[in-house]
Amino acid sequence: MADPRFFKKQGPFALSTIIETCEIDDVIGDPKGVDVTDIRPLIEAESGHLSFLSNIKYKSHLKDTKASAVFVDGKMASDLPASVIGLVSKNPHRSYAIATRMFYGNGQDVSFSGIHPTACISETAEIGEGTSIGPFAVIGDGVVIGKNCCIESHVTITHAKIGNHVRVFPGARIGQSGFGYAMDPRGHMPVPQLGCVIIGDHVEIGANTTIDRGSWKDTEIGDGCVIDNLVMLGHNVKMGRGCVIVAQTGISGSTTLGDFVVTAGQSGFVGHIEVGSGARVGAQAGVTRSIPAGAEVSGTPAVPLRQYLKQAAVLGKLTKKSS
Amino acid sequence: MADPRFFKKQGPFALSTIIETCEIDDVIGDPKGVDVTDIRPLIEAESGHLSFLSNIKYKSHLKDTKASAVFVDGKMASDLPASVIGLVSKNPHRSYAIATRMFYGNGQDVSFSGIHPTACISETAEIGEGTSIGPFAVIGDGVVIGKNCCIESHVTITHAKIGNHVRVFPGARIGQSGFGYAMDPRGHMPVPQLGCVIIGDHVEIGANTTIDRGSWKDTEIGDGCVIDNLVMLGHNVKMGRGCVIVAQTGISGSTTLGDFVVTAGQSGFVGHIEVGSGARVGAQAGVTRSIPAGAEVSGTPAVPLRQYLKQAAVLGKLTKKSS
Amino acid sequence: MADPRFFKKQGPFALSTIIETCEIDDVIGDPKGVDVTDIRPLIEAESGHLSFLSNIKYKSHLKDTKASAVFVDGKMASDLPASVIGLVSKNPHRSYAIATRMFYGNGQDVSFSGIHPTACISETAEIGEGTSIGPFAVIGDGVVIGKNCCIESHVTITHAKIGNHVRVFPGARIGQSGFGYAMDPRGHMPVPQLGCVIIGDHVEIGANTTIDRGSWKDTEIGDGCVIDNLVMLGHNVKMGRGCVIVAQTGISGSTTLGDFVVTAGQSGFVGHIEVGSGARVGAQAGVTRSIPAGAEVSGTPAVPLRQYLKQAAVLGKLTKKSS
Repeated sequence: MADPRFFKKQGPFALSTIIETCEIDDVIGDPKGVDVTDIRPLIEAESGHLSFLSNIKYKSHLKDTKASAVFVDGKMASDLPASVIGLVSKNPHRSYAIATRMFYGNGQDVSFSGIHPTACISETAEIGEGTSIGPFAVIGDGVVIGKNCCIESHVTITHAKIGNHVRVFPGARIGQSGFGYAMDPRGHMPVPQLGCVIIGDHVEIGANTTIDRGSWKDTEIGDGCVIDNLVMLGHNVKMGRGCVIVAQTGISGSTTLGDFVVTAGQSGFVGHIEVGSGARVGAQAGVTRSIPAGAEVSGTPAVPLRQYLKQAAVLGKLTKKSS
Repeated sequence: MADPRFFKKQGPFALSTIIETCEIDDVIGDPKGVDVTDIRPLIEAESGHLSFLSNIKYKSHLKDTKASAVFVDGKMASDLPASVIGLVSKNPHRSYAIATRMFYGNGQDVSFSGIHPTACISETAEIGEGTSIGPFAVIGDGVVIGKNCCIESHVTITHAKIGNHVRVFPGARIGQSGFGYAMDPRGHMPVPQLGCVIIGDHVEIGANTTIDRGSWKDTEIGDGCVIDNLVMLGHNVKMGRGCVIVAQTGISGSTTLGDFVVTAGQSGFVGHIEVGSGARVGAQAGVTRSIPAGAEVSGTPAVPLRQYLKQAAVLGKLTKKSS
Repeated sequence: MADPRFFKKQGPFALSTIIETCEIDDVIGDPKGVDVTDIRPLIEAESGHLSFLSNIKYKSHLKDTKASAVFVDGKMASDLPASVIGLVSKNPHRSYAIATRMFYGNGQDVSFSGIHPTACISETAEIGEGTSIGPFAVIGDGVVIGKNCCIESHVTITHAKIGNHVRVFPGARIGQSGFGYAMDPRGHMPVPQLGCVIIGDHVEIGANTTIDRGSWKDTEIGDGCVIDNLVMLGHNVKMGRGCVIVAQTGISGSTTLGDFVVTAGQSGFVGHIEVGSGARVGAQAGVTRSIPAGAEVSGTPAVPLRQYLKQAAVLGKLTKKSS
């Protein structure tokens, strides 16, 4: 149960309202007159609660649940106990997300909404309507932030233009000078970094992540990208729409990602390469050259997943032989 | 010598007081009437100083030391020069730590003790007695922090309950929303994260480390865990007592660690696996499946240490052949 | 073009002034009476602009450029169109850097220069002339910072002495307690960390990087080192002059680097080893033992580059055979 110390709950809601709102394709059972008071995992749910199953791994939880209604994939609908109303969705996780937002808003801390009085915001910055800025955030000269964004505590934003509905988690650094030096035995001279950072709509940027501004071109993050904690994006990195960048990934300067690229945790990319749309990069992979759209790679240096698995198999076999 | 600009020294102490306090099993030589003025490494110590040897690598420093007394393991006692008083301890490093705390307290910066006036603390947060909170720290609604904790500068804590004697180093982020999205081609929808972070007693959390709150369950850190800098702990991670998590480690969501697990630097763990108590994970290892208690693993994907070493040997041999 | 929202431009400058200032060895064409109004990439430059070519990869851009003058390496001078004045330099990237600083200063945010009123600076700290300190920076007791440094927002500096012309980017943590514990089944006891951090001149420290203070010895960063974002330097790490430490590198306690060592992104080093001057360490390499001056290593565990490439080739061959 969400701890009321930290989360405020709305509701109850009529199940029919939930069905209208949560992208439901089909209903198994009769929702008439049913009210929903909360949303809970299958094994914790009681009568009057809503729940969901999207991961087949937890299918066994379905038969014992006391929930009144459950979001399910069509394929799992037949496993529902007769007592439970099935809310069939193409994307039960998404339906669950929508319902959860009905009950709990976006789950953000409500103590620091609005523009916090301790935030340090340049007079030449522009902040859109509905945007909240947390304690000790720093917004530099000329920065533009769109509407309904949530900039959390201790964030630094300089040299940047940010879209709407963007969330930036605590301690993220956006727009500082990138790692550009004219190397020389007499001393590495910093090259002024004269680009900025352009961030689209509905982007999420994780805690303590760093995004350097461009050297001449801009560093660009497309609409709908979600970036986890402790990620490093170098100067001039460009990514398209909907990319998913998992924690501690590092992308070197001037590397370009297409749309909906997924990089697993601790993966790394050298600079000046292109990663095609829909590519998927394994955890800890080291990507040293451009990869085509839709490719799936793993390992260091990264190779196609099939080859990576074969390498592991060959090595395993040789090791057994030698023992 | 500890620079008096930064550290204030107490003492001198009678050697007999040190013997009583520092978990000493046996004394070689006569401590009567000896006063100790400071504590120093073997090669820097002068008469009146206390020193210690725990690492056999530095045994050669023993014979030339000018220290008046030295903490030693029983096995090394015979290497002590006759002029030096031996303080025999089962854990000389620990005895040294206790003595150092007698002289220098806990080595913390004393300039920012107490609740700093710039800290931003919610009115509904509860802060235990003896806890200090540094400049620009942010403590959100409903947060509970126990007694005698030290929360350093720029830390963010929201949605969390923290035990006693916990130290959180600068810039750590605790309790922010985890990386949970309902993936969808139309846009990844953030799933409200409704758990919190529960931290036990005597836990240490390194600089710029990030610990996300749970999605439904809580993220839990057991008593006595020590977590280094720039570590990432995903939502619902659970670890038992006494774990040691070295810098830049990343643990993905819903992974569980038992007690006294040790993860070396830059290691990574996929989500939803179990790591048994006492397991040891090598630097940069990539742990992709559950590992049993007491196991020692290395490599990516991580395999038992013996197998890892054999793989390296086989590969080395093949490489030689081919040249 | 550098966005005037974020960057203020000086100039125009006489081309002759640029030639005098930017370490030019030879001029091809007649610079007399030519004024320069801005500095741009080859493909964006217009008449009156200055540009540069240092990377042979972009040589094709040379023949179509509309720039009035271009910094070039002597070897590429013959590729210059007749209409373009060639400014021959041994290090065109450096000449470009100098010229860019004439037009744009050091490219820093000008909104937060000087000592920001929100910075929290101990009364016993010493701050040199010309040093600027950003919003919410924390400078602890006894800290010494030299002249003309730029300490950006949210930086924490305690237990440290810092030279001149040092830049510290947002959220870096310098001087906090290192990861030192007397391990024990009863609980890991923190060992007071009694060293400090010594940083030379012209050092750059990236956003959210953490540098722990020494345990007894100091942690030392030599003159001219440039350290990228999210780097972790453990207690007692020592590096010489001019080292280049790329993002997300981790160096464990008491490891020593010589001069001009280069570590690529996400590389890691165990503790207590020595890395010779001029050594180069590949991205994601795991360095487990000391390496000699000038060595080039890659892989985990790191081996000489030649051996690393051979390993990859052998593995590739075996994998093909088995398929």
